[in-house]
Amino acid sequence: MSKLRVAVLGAKGRIGSEAVRAVEAAEDMELVAALGRGDKLETMAEAGAEVAVELTDPDSVMGNLEFCVRHGIHGVVGTTGWTDERLAQLRGWLEAAPGTGVLIAPNFSIGAVLTMQFARQAARFFESVEVIELHHPNKVDAPSGTAARTAQLIAAAREQAGCAPQPDATSTALEGARGAEVDGVRVHSVRLRGLLAHQEVLLGGEGETLTIRHDSTHHSSFMPGVLLGVRRVVSAPGLTLGLEHFLDLD
Amino acid sequence: MSKLRVAVLGAKGRIGSEAVRAVEAAEDMELVAALGRGDKLETMAEAGAEVAVELTDPDSVMGNLEFCVRHGIHGVVGTTGWTDERLAQLRGWLEAAPGTGVLIAPNFSIGAVLTMQFARQAARFFESVEVIELHHPNKVDAPSGTAARTAQLIAAAREQAGCAPQPDATSTALEGARGAEVDGVRVHSVRLRGLLAHQEVLLGGEGETLTIRHDSTHHSSFMPGVLLGVRRVVSAPGLTLGLEHFLDLD
Amino acid sequence: MSKLRVAVLGAKGRIGSEAVRAVEAAEDMELVAALGRGDKLETMAEAGAEVAVELTDPDSVMGNLEFCVRHGIHGVVGTTGWTDERLAQLRGWLEAAPGTGVLIAPNFSIGAVLTMQFARQAARFFESVEVIELHHPNKVDAPSGTAARTAQLIAAAREQAGCAPQPDATSTALEGARGAEVDGVRVHSVRLRGLLAHQEVLLGGEGETLTIRHDSTHHSSFMPGVLLGVRRVVSAPGLTLGLEHFLDLD
Amino acid sequence: MSKLRVAVLGAKGRIGSEAVRAVEAAEDMELVAALGRGDKLETMAEAGAEVAVELTDPDSVMGNLEFCVRHGIHGVVGTTGWTDERLAQLRGWLEAAPGTGVLIAPNFSIGAVLTMQFARQAARFFESVEVIELHHPNKVDAPSGTAARTAQLIAAAREQAGCAPQPDATSTALEGARGAEVDGVRVHSVRLRGLLAHQEVLLGGEGETLTIRHDSTHHSSFMPGVLLGVRRVVSAPGLTLGLEHFLDLD
Repeated sequence: MSKLRVAVLGAKGRIGSEAVRAVEAAEDMELVAALGRGDKLETMAEAGAEVAVELTDPDSVMGNLEFCVRHGIHGVVGTTGWTDERLAQLRGWLEAAPGTGVLIAPNFSIGAVLTMQFARQAARFFESVEVIELHHPNKVDAPSGTAARTAQLIAAAREQAGCAPQPDATSTALEGARGAEVDGVRVHSVRLRGLLAHQEVLLGGEGETLTIRHDSTHHSSFMPGVLLGVRRVVSAPGLTLGLEHFLDLD
Repeated sequence: MSKLRVAVLGAKGRIGSEAVRAVEAAEDMELVAALGRGDKLETMAEAGAEVAVELTDPDSVMGNLEFCVRHGIHGVVGTTGWTDERLAQLRGWLEAAPGTGVLIAPNFSIGAVLTMQFARQAARFFESVEVIELHHPNKVDAPSGTAARTAQLIAAAREQAGCAPQPDATSTALEGARGAEVDGVRVHSVRLRGLLAHQEVLLGGEGETLTIRHDSTHHSSFMPGVLLGVRRVVSAPGLTLGLEHFLDLD
Repeated sequence: MSKLRVAVLGAKGRIGSEAVRAVEAAEDMELVAALGRGDKLETMAEAGAEVAVELTDPDSVMGNLEFCVRHGIHGVVGTTGWTDERLAQLRGWLEAAPGTGVLIAPNFSIGAVLTMQFARQAARFFESVEVIELHHPNKVDAPSGTAARTAQLIAAAREQAGCAPQPDATSTALEGARGAEVDGVRVHSVRLRGLLAHQEVLLGGEGETLTIRHDSTHHSSFMPGVLLGVRRVVSAPGLTLGLEHFLDLD
Repeated sequence: MSKLRVAVLGAKGRIGSEAVRAVEAAEDMELVAALGRGDKLETMAEAGAEVAVELTDPDSVMGNLEFCVRHGIHGVVGTTGWTDERLAQLRGWLEAAPGTGVLIAPNFSIGAVLTMQFARQAARFFESVEVIELHHPNKVDAPSGTAARTAQLIAAAREQAGCAPQPDATSTALEGARGAEVDGVRVHSVRLRGLLAHQEVLLGGEGETLTIRHDSTHHSSFMPGVLLGVRRVVSAPGLTLGLEHFLDLD
C-alpha cells in the first residue's frame, strides 16, 4: 500500500510539532512537507502532498486553504476563528474542486468528541443533566468552550425530544452555588493545580445516574484524531464540520 | 389521545409491583390487568390489553407469551432464561401473527444499556479498555452479568475494527491482581457494603482517558425503560432483542 | 458484660425509628424506652436508662436534656437549632452534674465526619482546594450545610498554616461558573435526580490531586455514628461538640 | 532568616534533577552542591551543606549516609532497598551523632502519604474496604508497592480494632475477578494507556461509602514532600521512617 503524502502547516508551533512527530510515526503516512511561517506553499505542492494538516492561525488559514483546494490537496484544519462568511467562502472554493475535502474540527481529541456525542445522545433519557469541567488554574475563561458547547448540545437534544425542564427546588442559594446556566443546563467550573483539562457530564433519572468523564492529561491526545482525520478526509469531498462525522457511531 | 391498555404479568413480584405502579403513574397508559400466579390469562384479553409486561419466571414465560401472541397482545419481557430453542419457538409464533411485537430485554435500565452501547462505540478508538463493576457484598457471582456482557461487546467491537491487543507489560503479579479476563478484556469486581450496582468502563489512549460510569441506586431505575418498551413495541412487529434498538441512537 | 440501657426520644420520627431499630439490633445495648411526642420523660428514668438518644426538635430538646442531665442520663443529640445561649445553658446544667456527658453532633454519618476531618488535615498541603456537593433536586438550599461547614474548616486550616491564596487566573466568566465562595473556598452545588447526598473535596498541587468523596445513599448511614456516640458518651463527662472527638484519629 | 544549605546527591537522575530545580526555586533554601556519580562527597561538606537529599541507588546510599552522619549533615532519603540490617547500621551511626536526623521515605508524594494515612484511620469504621490502583501499561508489577502497603496498613488497623472479616457472598467467580488479596484486603490493578499513577481506596458501610483517591500526573509531585522533609529533618534527630511523621496530622 502506498503511503499517504502529508504536509503540516504551522509545523513549528506546539501542536504543529506534535503533528509532525505523529505523521512521521504513522506507518501509513509519509511527511512530505513541514512548513513554518514564511515558508512557501508551493513546496508542498511540489512535494506531492495529498493532505495538508492546517495548524496555523486565523490570519493565515484562508490563504493556506485556498491554495490547498486549488491544488487538490485535502485539508485537516485545527485553526480556529471560523465565521459564517469564511465558511461560505471555503464552500465556494470546494464546489469548484469536486474531489477535494476539508475537515474543520474545533476539537481533535476523540475522547472529548465522544463525550459530547454520548452526552447529546443520552440527554433526553434523563430528568437531570449537569456539566462539571475541571482545569488548571491558569485558564482565563470559565466555563471552558468545550463545556459550553456540550451544554448547548444537551439543551438542543432535550428541546427536540420535548423534555420537561430539569427539576430544581433550590429556593435559598449562595450566589454562584448552582453554577452557570448555558441554555438551561448548569455548568460548574473547577480550577485546581495539578489538573490539565477534564470534563464530566452527569445525567440522573429515578434510581440511577450515568456519568461520562473525559480526562485530557497531555495535548498529544489530539494526535489520534488528527491522523484519523487525515485518513478519512481523502474520501470525504466537500466540507466536514466536526470530527464526530468521521467516527461512524451507530 | 386514547391511552395504551397495559397488563402486567407477575404483578405481585418485587419488580412486577414496581411495574404496576409505573404503568398506573404513566399519563399515556391505563393498567387494565395485573395478574399474579394462578390468575387466568383470559382476564387480560377480556380487559382489552394491547401490551403485556411479562415479569414472571422461566417456567411461566413461554405459556404467557404464546397466549399473548395468539391474542395479538404485544409483549415487553424482562423474564430471563432464554435459549436458542425458546427464541426460535417465539419467532415461529410471531411469524404467524405479523402485526404483533415482542421486546425481550436482559436489562431495562436505560443507563446500563447506554453504558454498554457507548462502551461498544468507543472501544475501537482507544488502546486500552478495562471494566470495573462494583456491587453490594451479598452478590454471589463475579463479575456481574452486565459487566461480562459489556466486556464481550467491547472485545467484539475491537476485533471487528482490527485493534491491536491491549498493551500490558505486567510480568510480576499477585494472583488476581489484574482481574478476570473476558474475551481479552480485564474485568474487576468490587464488593462493598453501601453499594447497590455500579459499573465503570475505562478507556485510555495517548494523553487521555474516557470513563463511562453507571450507578444504579434503586431498582425503580428499570421503570423508565419498561415504559419506553411498552410505547415502542406496538409499532415494532416481530422479535426485538435488547432495549438499545428502541433508543434511536445516532 | 451488662448491656447499655438506652432510651430514644423522638422515637416515632423517620430518624428516630431508625435509631430504635439500630439500638435493638446492637448486641451491647438494650432499648429500655422509646418515647414519642406527649410521652412522659419519667418513663425513661424509671426504666433505668443510662443514655438517651435525643432526636426530637428545637422546641423539645432543651426540656429533654435538662431532665436527662438532672437524672444523670447521658445524652446523644442529633436535634439542631443550637445557639450560644442554649449551649451555655446546657454547660451550666452539666457543671452541676459532673459525671454526666452530652454529645451534640450536627452529623452522625461517620463518612461525612471523616471527610471533613481529612479535608481539614490535608488542606494546608495543597495549592488548590474546592468542594463539590451533589444532592437530589428536591433540596431547597445550596450549598448544603455540610459543604459550607467543610469549606469553613478548610479555610481555617489554610489560614492557620499561612497558606497563600488559591491560584485562579479566571478573567472572563459566565455568572456562577466558578461556584459560590465560602471563606475563600469555592463550593459547587449539583442537583440531580437519582442522587441522595454526596460530597467531594478536591485538593490539587503540582503534579497531583487528592480527592475525598462521601456518598450517602440511605439515612441508615447515621446509625453507626449514633451507636458509637452512645458507647463513648458514658465515659466522656461534660459537653462534646462533634462526633469527630470520639473517632480517635491519630 | 538565613537559608537552609542543601546538597542533592544523585543530581543527574530524573528525580534528582527535579530536586535540584525544586531546591533552587525554594525561597528558604540554597543549593550548595549537586553531586552526580563520581563526584566527591567532600564537596558538600566543604560547601557547608546542612541537609543532603539522597536520590542515588542502593549501592551508593549507605556510603553517602555514613559520610553525611559523620559530618553532621541531615539526610532526606528517597533511595530504596532498605533491609533490617541496613536500618540497624544507620541507627548505629545516628546514635553516635545525636543532633543529626535522617528521614527515609518510600514515597515523597504528600497526596499518596495522606491517602495511606486516611485509609488507615478510616478502615476500622467501615464493614468493607477495597483498593483499586490504576497505572500506565508499561508498569511491570501488580499491584503497585503503594497499593500493597496501603492494604497492609488497612488490614493492620482493622485487626487492631477487632473488626469482623469483610462480608463477601461470592460463590461463583471467574478467576481473578475479585482481585488480589493482601492481608485479607482485595486489591485491583488497572493498566491503561493515558494514566500515570493513581490509587483509590473504597470504604463502605450501611448506607454510605467513603472514597479516597490520589492521582499522580507528574513526578514533580514528589518535590513538595522532599522540601517539607528538608525543612523538618533539621529538628528531628535520629531516624524517621515515613513522611507521615512530619505531616502533623491531628
